[in-house]
Amino acid sequence: MAHATRHDVSDRAAKQDDPYRSRISLLPEIVPRVDPVLYGGRHSAGPLTSEQLASYSHDGFIQLHGLLDAAEIKALQAEHVRLRTNRSTIDQDTLILEPGSAELRSVFQIHVQSDLIGRLASDARLVAITRQILGDDVYIHQARLNYKPGLFGKEFYWHSDFETWHVEDGMPRMRALSMSILLTENTPYNGPLLIMPGSHHHYVRCVGETPDDHYKQSLRKQEYGVPDADSLSQLYVAGGIATLTGAAGSIVVFDCNAMHGSNSNIAPLPRSNVFLVYNSIKNRLTDPFGGKKPRPEFIANRRKATALAPRSVSLFGDR
Amino acid sequence: MAHATRHDVSDRAAKQDDPYRSRISLLPEIVPRVDPVLYGGRHSAGPLTSEQLASYSHDGFIQLHGLLDAAEIKALQAEHVRLRTNRSTIDQDTLILEPGSAELRSVFQIHVQSDLIGRLASDARLVAITRQILGDDVYIHQARLNYKPGLFGKEFYWHSDFETWHVEDGMPRMRALSMSILLTENTPYNGPLLIMPGSHHHYVRCVGETPDDHYKQSLRKQEYGVPDADSLSQLYVAGGIATLTGAAGSIVVFDCNAMHGSNSNIAPLPRSNVFLVYNSIKNRLTDPFGGKKPRPEFIANRRKATALAPRSVSLFGDR
Repeated sequence: MAHATRHDVSDRAAKQDDPYRSRISLLPEIVPRVDPVLYGGRHSAGPLTSEQLASYSHDGFIQLHGLLDAAEIKALQAEHVRLRTNRSTIDQDTLILEPGSAELRSVFQIHVQSDLIGRLASDARLVAITRQILGDDVYIHQARLNYKPGLFGKEFYWHSDFETWHVEDGMPRMRALSMSILLTENTPYNGPLLIMPGSHHHYVRCVGETPDDHYKQSLRKQEYGVPDADSLSQLYVAGGIATLTGAAGSIVVFDCNAMHGSNSNIAPLPRSNVFLVYNSIKNRLTDPFGGKKPRPEFIANRRKATALAPRSVSLFGDR
Repeated sequence: MAHATRHDVSDRAAKQDDPYRSRISLLPEIVPRVDPVLYGGRHSAGPLTSEQLASYSHDGFIQLHGLLDAAEIKALQAEHVRLRTNRSTIDQDTLILEPGSAELRSVFQIHVQSDLIGRLASDARLVAITRQILGDDVYIHQARLNYKPGLFGKEFYWHSDFETWHVEDGMPRMRALSMSILLTENTPYNGPLLIMPGSHHHYVRCVGETPDDHYKQSLRKQEYGVPDADSLSQLYVAGGIATLTGAAGSIVVFDCNAMHGSNSNIAPLPRSNVFLVYNSIKNRLTDPFGGKKPRPEFIANRRKATALAPRSVSLFGDR
């Protein structure tokens, strides 16, 4: 008993030390980010212009057009159709369905399950941008295909990915970014990505505690780690909302702590994308900061955290 | 029994004669509209330009900016807040809540319950436009305040208002229009009105039958009278989707048969509007074409179908 009490006390002290503690209070709070957005260092030379870097630093995201060529986009779209129609080739544990239906919502660990998407994840063009922003060698923390079906696609409520990765996966600091590679046209009306510009400079501590095995339902419909209405209003008043529309093949690069979400999709036009999360090799996962057991490997890469060796500049290999 | 059989047969024959029959087959169908969009006649001179009329005829809607002045917009916004926060003054039957919550979604018969909105409904500026399009004297078929709350506003699935008004209310022909007067800014991200341009030229017969007292849940969440996926795709491929954004005070005028809907609203910015439906006095309601008992008076005006006497040009009366 004495041991258990000591453990509880030191555990609580450790949590109070954590600048990104969350889900341990009944009151929400917004605090400043304590990590850089752009990391300098030996990798900081790279393909992005200083204007693009400044925009990323200010808003928490940039959009890239024309990085992939038409043949590459077509190949990714065909791969997406193939994976969707041949579900038997996919590890069933990595399939997530829409809330209240049997429609496919996401396939996780897609870079391992698809050679083409594996090549995309380690493509020199994407990795060079990631290294330039994060100032370090990187690895894939999470990779998935998202399908937002036409007509009945449901909304994704506002969230910071980092809040979840910190509390549930043990990602120590904000030194990660996501790339969303659009596979269908994203219009104002088919549930495009919404980001609150500048929100990545602030950290919203969420209220409540995380239930055990939360991921089993949170990937379908989030109910914990949800920011409160007042904090969202403050971030909105400060920076507004950007609606990230774009042609198939365009790419959104966004900071791990950007507040983002998307509305439903009643349009007869699905919204699909490949979602790749890159993390600095100096920011590998530890025990989850929320104190629960880690989520499965297909959601958060713990074992294979070796730096990516960037491949030559084409999804089709050397040419 | 013999009588009942004869009745069934003649009832079925009557339905087969109805150009806008719906919800009587297991297979959906798209058929051409048989009514005009613009009606000529003695009222056809009016404030809209020939370009505006041509646009309305082609697309099924127009947007009007600057028709209401700043003081009028402010007064309508204040009235909306007043009605929302003093629910006790409202006939409880006319309140519709969001699906799965206690949030207010709509207040019906609002032109009778609010003097200001009553004046808006009979405002000479709106009535002149309506008469010009419908070529006749008009009356209010339905009037409501819609609230789409910020953060948790739910989507409205695609529908033709006329399909419901015909089947459930007994509106004979397509000689009605709606005006949506925006009370908050409508952006791409707070669930704005979406319309499929050109869809009003086609009538989608929906499948299935209407349950008794369908309105009690359909005003919260529509499950019958819902167009099928193939028909929606055809209309979308033909005309696309228009996202009707605009400042508070702007007005969308749209045909009773325009296919429309809206996505969810996760933005911390509510979307509210006054929704007024004008019908030609030659198009007064008969028995519902679906054969069920009529919906209540607060949803579909049966008794008070006298032509509007347009009021002077200000919401504040003569000045």
